[in-house]
Amino acid sequence: MSKILRIKMRHLTIQEETAKESYELLGGRAFIAKFLLDEVPATCQPLGRHNKLILAPGLLGGSKVFSSGRVSIGAKSPLTGGVKESNGGGIVGSKLGRLAYKAIVIEEIPMGEQKYILRVTAEGAELLPGDSYWGLGVYETAERLHEVFGRNIAIACIGPAGERKFSAAGIANTDIDGVPSRYCGRGGLGAVMGSKGIKAIIIDDSQAKVLEPARPEEFKSVVLEFARLLNESPVAQTYRNYGTAALVNLTNSQGGLPTRNFTTGVFEGAEKICGERMRDIIEARKGKMAHACMPGCIIRCSNNYVNEQGESLVAPLEYETIALMGSNLDIDDLDTVAQLNYLCNDYGLDTIETGAALGVAMASGLLEFGDKQGALDLVKEIGKGSIIGRVLGMGAETTGKVLGVVHIPVVKGQAMPGYEPRAFKGLGVTYATSTMGPDHTAGQTLRAKIDHSSREGQATLSKKAQNTLPVYDNLGLCLFTSAGLGAHPEVLVALINSQLGMDYRAEDVFSLAEQTVKWEREFNQKAGFTQVDDRLPESFNEIQNPAVKTTFDVSGEELDQVHA
Amino acid sequence: MSKILRIKMRHLTIQEETAKESYELLGGRAFIAKFLLDEVPATCQPLGRHNKLILAPGLLGGSKVFSSGRVSIGAKSPLTGGVKESNGGGIVGSKLGRLAYKAIVIEEIPMGEQKYILRVTAEGAELLPGDSYWGLGVYETAERLHEVFGRNIAIACIGPAGERKFSAAGIANTDIDGVPSRYCGRGGLGAVMGSKGIKAIIIDDSQAKVLEPARPEEFKSVVLEFARLLNESPVAQTYRNYGTAALVNLTNSQGGLPTRNFTTGVFEGAEKICGERMRDIIEARKGKMAHACMPGCIIRCSNNYVNEQGESLVAPLEYETIALMGSNLDIDDLDTVAQLNYLCNDYGLDTIETGAALGVAMASGLLEFGDKQGALDLVKEIGKGSIIGRVLGMGAETTGKVLGVVHIPVVKGQAMPGYEPRAFKGLGVTYATSTMGPDHTAGQTLRAKIDHSSREGQATLSKKAQNTLPVYDNLGLCLFTSAGLGAHPEVLVALINSQLGMDYRAEDVFSLAEQTVKWEREFNQKAGFTQVDDRLPESFNEIQNPAVKTTFDVSGEELDQVHA
Repeated sequence: MSKILRIKMRHLTIQEETAKESYELLGGRAFIAKFLLDEVPATCQPLGRHNKLILAPGLLGGSKVFSSGRVSIGAKSPLTGGVKESNGGGIVGSKLGRLAYKAIVIEEIPMGEQKYILRVTAEGAELLPGDSYWGLGVYETAERLHEVFGRNIAIACIGPAGERKFSAAGIANTDIDGVPSRYCGRGGLGAVMGSKGIKAIIIDDSQAKVLEPARPEEFKSVVLEFARLLNESPVAQTYRNYGTAALVNLTNSQGGLPTRNFTTGVFEGAEKICGERMRDIIEARKGKMAHACMPGCIIRCSNNYVNEQGESLVAPLEYETIALMGSNLDIDDLDTVAQLNYLCNDYGLDTIETGAALGVAMASGLLEFGDKQGALDLVKEIGKGSIIGRVLGMGAETTGKVLGVVHIPVVKGQAMPGYEPRAFKGLGVTYATSTMGPDHTAGQTLRAKIDHSSREGQATLSKKAQNTLPVYDNLGLCLFTSAGLGAHPEVLVALINSQLGMDYRAEDVFSLAEQTVKWEREFNQKAGFTQVDDRLPESFNEIQNPAVKTTFDVSGEELDQVHA
Repeated sequence: MSKILRIKMRHLTIQEETAKESYELLGGRAFIAKFLLDEVPATCQPLGRHNKLILAPGLLGGSKVFSSGRVSIGAKSPLTGGVKESNGGGIVGSKLGRLAYKAIVIEEIPMGEQKYILRVTAEGAELLPGDSYWGLGVYETAERLHEVFGRNIAIACIGPAGERKFSAAGIANTDIDGVPSRYCGRGGLGAVMGSKGIKAIIIDDSQAKVLEPARPEEFKSVVLEFARLLNESPVAQTYRNYGTAALVNLTNSQGGLPTRNFTTGVFEGAEKICGERMRDIIEARKGKMAHACMPGCIIRCSNNYVNEQGESLVAPLEYETIALMGSNLDIDDLDTVAQLNYLCNDYGLDTIETGAALGVAMASGLLEFGDKQGALDLVKEIGKGSIIGRVLGMGAETTGKVLGVVHIPVVKGQAMPGYEPRAFKGLGVTYATSTMGPDHTAGQTLRAKIDHSSREGQATLSKKAQNTLPVYDNLGLCLFTSAGLGAHPEVLVALINSQLGMDYRAEDVFSLAEQTVKWEREFNQKAGFTQVDDRLPESFNEIQNPAVKTTFDVSGEELDQVHA
């Protein structure tokens, strides 16, 4: 996995190069961090010609390691103005890995108005006319591309939100069923792709093969051990049984389920939107639980949420969406959440950012909390690109500013995910100090055995999580594999070494993860971030979450220690 | 002038205190800079309870020195997120001076929804019910307040824009005719006043007297010398004859009149909106040129622009408005510009920020460049508070973001005034590096004998201007008095010393001005600003102004030297 494919959109040139040696051990998020630092001016306009969009599989991408096919997409973020790696499931990562690409890099912006599809195969890459796809939702885009280019492809594409360069726009990746609902959602990367005039990237690995392990015997036994660990993990079992929606009851019971624009953390309607209820509904309607987004997944947290006629409403319905578009909007009805989710997916919108923007709109009085039809109508406005739609499409911060709301759940311009930071203070620390802005996957502390609403130990906890999680993002491993690997770094390292034929030590893996965060931090500093940006909004520090009767009281000094 | 009046809006308390000794020599802008640094957390939410709104006359405010009645209004800016002093003419400053106030400081925010009028007299201050004024334009507000409180008052008030906390909202001050069109326009201070629930501040100095000079004989002679210098100044004469609109031909001839959203600097319709044309129209229609905004002004740059029936359209019509709402919108008709100006004034909007926002809206295709009725309609939307109105009311940057425009003429979130920074590179340096964001009054270089479109010497020139101009803002002197005093610091110092009975040296005056900028810079640093914020937008560095065939090419190193 040593090739870099560079697409330069100004003169529409394509070149393939061998990655420099210093990139050898960098995959996914680590590669993006170092590459941005090396090649993208940190102060550049994110939607201008100097920004670069990077798609990178993890180091294990394309191998037979379970759940190793995540794709990292990165650029300077138009939402945060800082570094961004957004990580998605589906089959793009493994196919990129099989084609032996370390990364695809899309540079510059086109001179004219023409739009493009980038097609990558074992024979090389080409830019094809994309105008006829421009304006389509991601579902129809994927359907049409499958018709033309066959089923054996992976697609990363944008919807109208990315085309219009909305800061809430993500990039949709197809899953094993060819459904483009595996989102690299955060940070507005869809807008970066839109700015480059690219509607979709097709990865066709028909002529390529799975990457065989360098040391097959060792690999076989360690993969079996990996599988055993995952199968035995109660956390993984919970995800399989209830999806990520299993978290609803967990966070709600601790006063940390964002409710009515993050004004409290206990939602009266929680039991109507929890994982158990979701499972009941899906089973009664003959939808699908324990669905896998990529081949060979043991965890299978995904699902297909169907309507009463058994037709798919959205696949999958996940915790973050339920929190941000359910309790956060005072909507206690999974069918409505599923419809909101589908619309966002189709338009190419991050459901976290969009849910937070809707919450802020409700707080402004533009519509009432709990107004299901109003929420659906507003999301449709984003799809239409009307003025209010454009406002919402720019995310929660812009929405709050325009609508005159003071309590806006954002840090570094990006919306908080589904954990109320006064109840889960470790996550609050992550929101404040992560290089990525508020992002649970950048420093999840939910499962630590700690009093989550006490400030004690939260900065240390978040720091450890922030510095550890890039391990998974660098390898292309789904974060949920940490349920098995977290306590077994020797297995993690054996997976890497047997697959790649190396003699990597656990400390190497962890120090690269730490280094990744350092690179990201360096990029953000060059982009103008200071300690002032590592803070929650004033209202979270000064107004209590009534469910836990505490403000976010981790001190500035403690926050500044996280990356000191 | 040693009293500070503190109004605390949470419990509606009023207290008067003696300013601490270290504030003795600080007036206007210098006082605001130091006071903000001392009392306002730089990272606070500008519309939250920690911000403080400060009204401060200059050290000569209330004296018989001509043109010394400017008022400085300051706070942390909701537009830039940094320090803000905005400076206005009219009669507020001199009346505050006569009441011997160093400053009025409005703190905290009210607990309820009730609105207030603050009335300040020689007997003290009181908060009166303001609800019946809330929602009114500034003209009707002033008219009604005059009916109730008499003609011998000065008023500082906000319109609906400030009430709605729009970032483009200014504070209107009444002039000698009681007309509230002397704006502290920049930086969104109207929104800060709105956040404090105060519609208007009334200054009644009926029981107070003009501040007599400490050394009357010396004062008499130096004031005569000051008058002679001003009367003989060709620059002052030009302002008297043509108003500030005299600049239209000057900037246009050098390729620096912002045209069509700052895409070029020569406007085909310049002669239809220039000062000479304005004078012809005003004289033919029997309006008024050479109007004074404060008593005893020798310069008299103001005017009353009337319609064909001789009825006032707006008073005054000024250069910045003509540039931003004329050429910048491709509107070559002063009647339309005057109407736009009147609407902005009445709603309580900064015409620079609003003009820039309209320019960006035109660049987005929302309406055509040159669409007069469309521009008027859009400004009315701001008055109504519709969604597009709210977007525009938040200023050019938010408008550009929402409407998807990349070339947005802003730095630190604030719009550029009427000098194209690639043609006037000294002003470009000021825009980039000023503590105030782009503000011509913070570092005007227009009249320097230099090739303005060459990068040579611009950083040095701007630095000198930035460090000198606070001299005037600290004293309450109109900047235009620099036409007489600029070359005669001995007269400037003699004015101060004879009025205040001091033995100030010229170097003291200038070092306090430099210190003022340092304090402001310190505040901004604490608020999170870095060198990255001291840059023009990428497009100004990379795309030429075709009128001068050059980009903004002053280097980052040179910009960083300005405040090094």
